[in-house]
Amino acid sequence: MKTTHTEAVVIGAGLSGLASARELRRSGIEVALLEARDRVGGRTLNHPIGDGKAVELGGQWIGPGQDEIAALADELGIPTFPTHDAGKKLFEHSGHVVAYNGTVPKAGPIGTAEFGIAVLRLERMAKRVPPRAPWEAPRAKAWDRETFASWIRRNARSRFAREALTLWSESVLAVDPADISLLHVLAHASAHRGVIALCSTTGGAQERRVVGGSQRIALALAEELAECLRLRQPVRRIEHGDFVRVHTDHAVFEAKHVIVAMSPTMAGRLCYDPPLPPERDQLAQHMPMGSIVKCVAVYDEPFWRKSGRSGQALSDRGPVKFAFDNSPPDGNPGVLLGFVAGAHARSFSQLAPEVRKQRALDCFTRWFGPEADQPRDYVEKAWAQDEWARGGYFGYMPPGVWTTLGPALGRPVGRLHWAGSETSGVCMGSMDGAIRAGKRAAAEVVDDICAGPRPMCLNGATSELLG
Amino acid sequence: MKTTHTEAVVIGAGLSGLASARELRRSGIEVALLEARDRVGGRTLNHPIGDGKAVELGGQWIGPGQDEIAALADELGIPTFPTHDAGKKLFEHSGHVVAYNGTVPKAGPIGTAEFGIAVLRLERMAKRVPPRAPWEAPRAKAWDRETFASWIRRNARSRFAREALTLWSESVLAVDPADISLLHVLAHASAHRGVIALCSTTGGAQERRVVGGSQRIALALAEELAECLRLRQPVRRIEHGDFVRVHTDHAVFEAKHVIVAMSPTMAGRLCYDPPLPPERDQLAQHMPMGSIVKCVAVYDEPFWRKSGRSGQALSDRGPVKFAFDNSPPDGNPGVLLGFVAGAHARSFSQLAPEVRKQRALDCFTRWFGPEADQPRDYVEKAWAQDEWARGGYFGYMPPGVWTTLGPALGRPVGRLHWAGSETSGVCMGSMDGAIRAGKRAAAEVVDDICAGPRPMCLNGATSELLG
Repeated sequence: MKTTHTEAVVIGAGLSGLASARELRRSGIEVALLEARDRVGGRTLNHPIGDGKAVELGGQWIGPGQDEIAALADELGIPTFPTHDAGKKLFEHSGHVVAYNGTVPKAGPIGTAEFGIAVLRLERMAKRVPPRAPWEAPRAKAWDRETFASWIRRNARSRFAREALTLWSESVLAVDPADISLLHVLAHASAHRGVIALCSTTGGAQERRVVGGSQRIALALAEELAECLRLRQPVRRIEHGDFVRVHTDHAVFEAKHVIVAMSPTMAGRLCYDPPLPPERDQLAQHMPMGSIVKCVAVYDEPFWRKSGRSGQALSDRGPVKFAFDNSPPDGNPGVLLGFVAGAHARSFSQLAPEVRKQRALDCFTRWFGPEADQPRDYVEKAWAQDEWARGGYFGYMPPGVWTTLGPALGRPVGRLHWAGSETSGVCMGSMDGAIRAGKRAAAEVVDDICAGPRPMCLNGATSELLG
Repeated sequence: MKTTHTEAVVIGAGLSGLASARELRRSGIEVALLEARDRVGGRTLNHPIGDGKAVELGGQWIGPGQDEIAALADELGIPTFPTHDAGKKLFEHSGHVVAYNGTVPKAGPIGTAEFGIAVLRLERMAKRVPPRAPWEAPRAKAWDRETFASWIRRNARSRFAREALTLWSESVLAVDPADISLLHVLAHASAHRGVIALCSTTGGAQERRVVGGSQRIALALAEELAECLRLRQPVRRIEHGDFVRVHTDHAVFEAKHVIVAMSPTMAGRLCYDPPLPPERDQLAQHMPMGSIVKCVAVYDEPFWRKSGRSGQALSDRGPVKFAFDNSPPDGNPGVLLGFVAGAHARSFSQLAPEVRKQRALDCFTRWFGPEADQPRDYVEKAWAQDEWARGGYFGYMPPGVWTTLGPALGRPVGRLHWAGSETSGVCMGSMDGAIRAGKRAAAEVVDDICAGPRPMCLNGATSELLG
């Protein structure tokens, strides 16, 4: 098998791997960027809808404070635009659909108050969790030993508050409250701008979108990196020691360092020689992916806007439990985007395609009227079915994991470095976190290589400002 | 690469895979049994201590109701003997070491009563959990959404009761109470003979041992299966459809069916073509291994017996938190076996070998006196470091997993069948469960093959009586 010699190998050409490879190249380091798929972008994925327009089947939003991804889009000349947020939002609760304004639906004084108090508690606790080291929070052990579901039951008695907190978990993390520890909720909120910002459109994590679809960023980076990018090169095995040797099905790459820019669970499926140390291997075992299905319906126009609706909806019924107007900036065509998350996504995925489509359209129809039942195009993406993602949005921590295995998440193992949005202490899980993690891992490699006898190194780098 | 044609491939020559291969052969089906290691036995492993004697570094006990493993040992002519259980047991609690009789240490009326009531509650709930389908328990959702740690805190206020329940989790499942759902505790108890039986010696899961060490059973099976067993054949990839094609580093095996006799997490690390359906892949992501270190100290004689001690100890201090007299039947030499479990195992494993040894011996010395500090031999096995186990005793279910992904645990995927002790509804996790799961998976294959046009099939088989 042919062996290619290079300085660094980056595995995975999602946003994180692309950002790593770009940083390395900018420091004058020779890179091979290996991607298993026949495309770049990882968990960002455009679906063309004609006229050069696209809808996104993967990660897509940019919120305040997500400066790395915003700056990168800007640098690449890719404009962003505000997510459509005008008009009433809908909340389907106990069989009724009601309209509301603002981020949080209201449902009677008790439920609303209870939800508000619960959120305040979460925000206050989250402030005490260092996002890069959640295990160092003062009450980390206690917060890590209970599920978010248990916390919800203790802190909310009304059906509304419980359902609203469950919807938060499903929409923000793509998991059920039973799947995660309270500490994971707090760590995630702390890594972003808090609980409410995470589920907000204007002023929050869903604030802006990328003109032409978020995958454009990855595609533009790939163009820059064309000469070092190899598609259809699933990595199977990594030998590591004084150097690294990365084996794909068809080739071998020998280098000084390797950056694994994959989710922890997928990274754990490679063969390592020698095997990974137990704490890193156990981390990979303990950080599964969430489950998300994106359901996209395309209409001639965003008809819901005419009746003053924003296209945003929340539902306690499902299977689609939250939805957005995902039309292009000019509103032509109209696009509704629905999410099926957590355990719902798992059962939904097992239905026949026609049934899934009809179930999703039934939701849109309940909320936006009979016009919603006749889209001109319907497309969906179940990320757990994706061979190279096997879930989405991202990996998460069940109870007990942050406080025992958390430190292994970003810590290099010899010449193995870990990127991927999950490893970013800032904006973990987002496109922004992916860029930060990629740059941080690249900085580790640059520092190591420049510390050695290598006069042609252009500049050092540190991870000060990154995730 | 050479392609071998056969009728069935079994991956993994632990007890489960060996039992599968044996059953298949008995039904006249041609088998290739592939093992990654250079030995058989999986998570059973003998360590020779001279005179043809051995101590066990892996699974070792046979309890009441574990009829499959008992019958198999009997059939193979391998005798068993009662675990040494005579004498006082020790309980180290809040810095004091006290002696006790029976299964449960006593520590004041409140703690003892609280623990007793908690156990009664657990036993009562466990009776309502069908061991083959825990998700069908009447309160499955509620029991699955909280951690065992949360349940302990609600149901026990005394330090003693909390510590005793934590010790139960560590000793029976090799996990912390924060790692698992209440439902997992109940499912495990239901799959065995209840909460107390699981932590009992005489009358419980630790009742009997195998003369010469438990790995003898695997070794005897391997002898029978010598012509179909291939060691050092780590499987990397499985193509499956109308037939299966199993790829190791050096060979290809083509067959009608494959039985994957590995833990779910390790099975999830193989490449499948086509990829596994999402529910099975997500199951593999969501069922990590526990963490256990076995520390074995060998002495000229079991000196603790002279002072009326059983060699059994429980401790809230650790790092060794529970210990047994693991001497051979004739008590020569004397062997103390200590366990470090859960998060303790993870931190313990990161210490230097001399430090680990001294920490373990310090525990034995606190309990059994200064003689314990000078073993003639000391050996340990950290299962999370084992390349092909990556944890122990077995895979477990964090909260939310049984009720959403549980049904995928044993369900075949086309011509892929799943063995491994985790998939047994009876005695899951034990050596007995491994045999049952192996036989059940073999029965699936036999039924399928005999249903087809294959007149030479010796006998059908059903999974009625198996796990």
